[in-house]
Amino acid sequence: MTDAETAAKALLSADLRGVDSHGVARLSGYVRLWEVKRVNSSPSLRVIHETPSTAVVDGDRGLGLVVAPYAMEVAINKARNVGSGWVSVQNSNHFGIAGYHAMMALPHDMIGIAMTNASALVAPTFSTQRMLGTNPIAVAIPAGNEQPFVADFATTTASNGKLEILQRKNEAAPLGWVQTKEGMGSTNANALKEGGAMLPLGGDREHGSHKGYMLGSIVDIFSGILSGANYGPWVPPFPSYVPMPENMPGNGIGHFFGAMRIDAFRTAEDFKNNMDNWIREFKKAKTVEGIDKVIIPGEPESEMEKERMLSGIPLFKSVIDDLSELGKRFDVELKLV
Amino acid sequence: MTDAETAAKALLSADLRGVDSHGVARLSGYVRLWEVKRVNSSPSLRVIHETPSTAVVDGDRGLGLVVAPYAMEVAINKARNVGSGWVSVQNSNHFGIAGYHAMMALPHDMIGIAMTNASALVAPTFSTQRMLGTNPIAVAIPAGNEQPFVADFATTTASNGKLEILQRKNEAAPLGWVQTKEGMGSTNANALKEGGAMLPLGGDREHGSHKGYMLGSIVDIFSGILSGANYGPWVPPFPSYVPMPENMPGNGIGHFFGAMRIDAFRTAEDFKNNMDNWIREFKKAKTVEGIDKVIIPGEPESEMEKERMLSGIPLFKSVIDDLSELGKRFDVELKLV
Repeated sequence: MTDAETAAKALLSADLRGVDSHGVARLSGYVRLWEVKRVNSSPSLRVIHETPSTAVVDGDRGLGLVVAPYAMEVAINKARNVGSGWVSVQNSNHFGIAGYHAMMALPHDMIGIAMTNASALVAPTFSTQRMLGTNPIAVAIPAGNEQPFVADFATTTASNGKLEILQRKNEAAPLGWVQTKEGMGSTNANALKEGGAMLPLGGDREHGSHKGYMLGSIVDIFSGILSGANYGPWVPPFPSYVPMPENMPGNGIGHFFGAMRIDAFRTAEDFKNNMDNWIREFKKAKTVEGIDKVIIPGEPESEMEKERMLSGIPLFKSVIDDLSELGKRFDVELKLV
Repeated sequence: MTDAETAAKALLSADLRGVDSHGVARLSGYVRLWEVKRVNSSPSLRVIHETPSTAVVDGDRGLGLVVAPYAMEVAINKARNVGSGWVSVQNSNHFGIAGYHAMMALPHDMIGIAMTNASALVAPTFSTQRMLGTNPIAVAIPAGNEQPFVADFATTTASNGKLEILQRKNEAAPLGWVQTKEGMGSTNANALKEGGAMLPLGGDREHGSHKGYMLGSIVDIFSGILSGANYGPWVPPFPSYVPMPENMPGNGIGHFFGAMRIDAFRTAEDFKNNMDNWIREFKKAKTVEGIDKVIIPGEPESEMEKERMLSGIPLFKSVIDDLSELGKRFDVELKLV
């Protein structure tokens, strides 16, 4: 597979799974990063340090969409050999949806883990300063007859994508999503643009925001410090027009991946039977009035994928225009159905 | 070290670090579990399945305070040999504070991870049924001149210990901690006793409770299903008088431990210098009015430990009475200073 195909597959997966903010809508943003020479379009990916169960990968400033599958393959190979594989990545860029990379482990009867740091938008508990990214975590776990369990979530109360939707609609945000420049909880979806910050999962101290802050920090340290990438307030921003932070301590953005072979613990059959049992028990748990059933992590995305494989992926006019323009520029014909 | 010493050390660590709910105050509860033959006081701990980087440990119904350090040692030894070690544990019991076990990795220049499932008190998002425990996660990360980073948190909005304090004081709980039997958010700290449930970190869907639910589920699956322990609503309860769940699919409570050697990724020196840089940068982040500084995970507990090593551990009269009674019964003299 060429790098372009690898990247396209990852982007497409986001659109199929209904995470439209991380699909082809991002393509022009990636192109702009390439234009300002922050993305290397022909990176030499390599392992720069390793043990039987761990590795550090240098992404050579490649697109995260290309670097992440490479690193995840390294983790899977190590898991095949010694039971588990853990790979920290430096010198990378935005890698799309974390869940896609974690799910690469599933066909191998392995548990997959993926996380990444990102440029600072989030204030730690009691702080007014943006110190962490939305730093997502994904964990994909195989099941038997049931769909796999796939958790994929930002370590903030809400993702930046959801906040942007409210901004476009000019609607208020629930308390706990953002704070003002002074660090007061706010329902102003535009608080971020006015010098405020996003909030760690929990929202405020009373509601456990220190736990979201800890989770985001762990992702930052595993992705950024273990690998030699940047971390905290020094992680490079996604928009190409935002200047790079000063005195950066590492190389590019960092990711962290893990793969654990199920039968390195117990037989895949026993494990999957029990996962099916877990999933069925949770599906039939009693619900609050007006709700049909308890949702299993990954279920809505998997249903969306089935639907969109049949009916196609709806795109906003603005995204189509964006893609048409890119097509003209790079002499690629855009066929829409 | 005898098993009794191993367990005492773990309990003492909780008291020293200020987690009084998980220290010697629990001793009589453990004794009651032994009385009803749910805790085996002389377990034969052993690895029942392994690969170079993974293992499953059978706790032989031992006290988690004894089983967990054994399993963590297995993880540390594997990390020494192949870079990382991952151990899932079945047939165990309550293991005290997760942070203590994770911190065992620190003197070896390793990152330590510890988690456990627990009896069901928490309702998944949109459910009225208790399906998960407070399922804590601890991650301990070495630093250089700074204190280590130690995150240790329940995957619920608030720990059960904090809720119990409000119950004793007859005070209201913040919204987002508990819900009523019907699944409505409630400020009634006693909602749990009236058929309600604790809430996953986030509190409700709008504030990201599906993320807390996912986190608690991951802990449950890594601890319970990978190992062959119980999981979900089948995890044995802590109070000895609560009947065991029916049709239990596994053995005892489950834990999950990890150890990653820092120099399996980069030199410990480089890593620690960057961790010091991370910690200092976060410590000096701008704060909201009235707050001195941003707290680094583990800092309050480490300061408490220093203070209590000098001034001793204050105990409630009820805990002293409890210990005196145990002392009389087992012919151990209680010396209080």
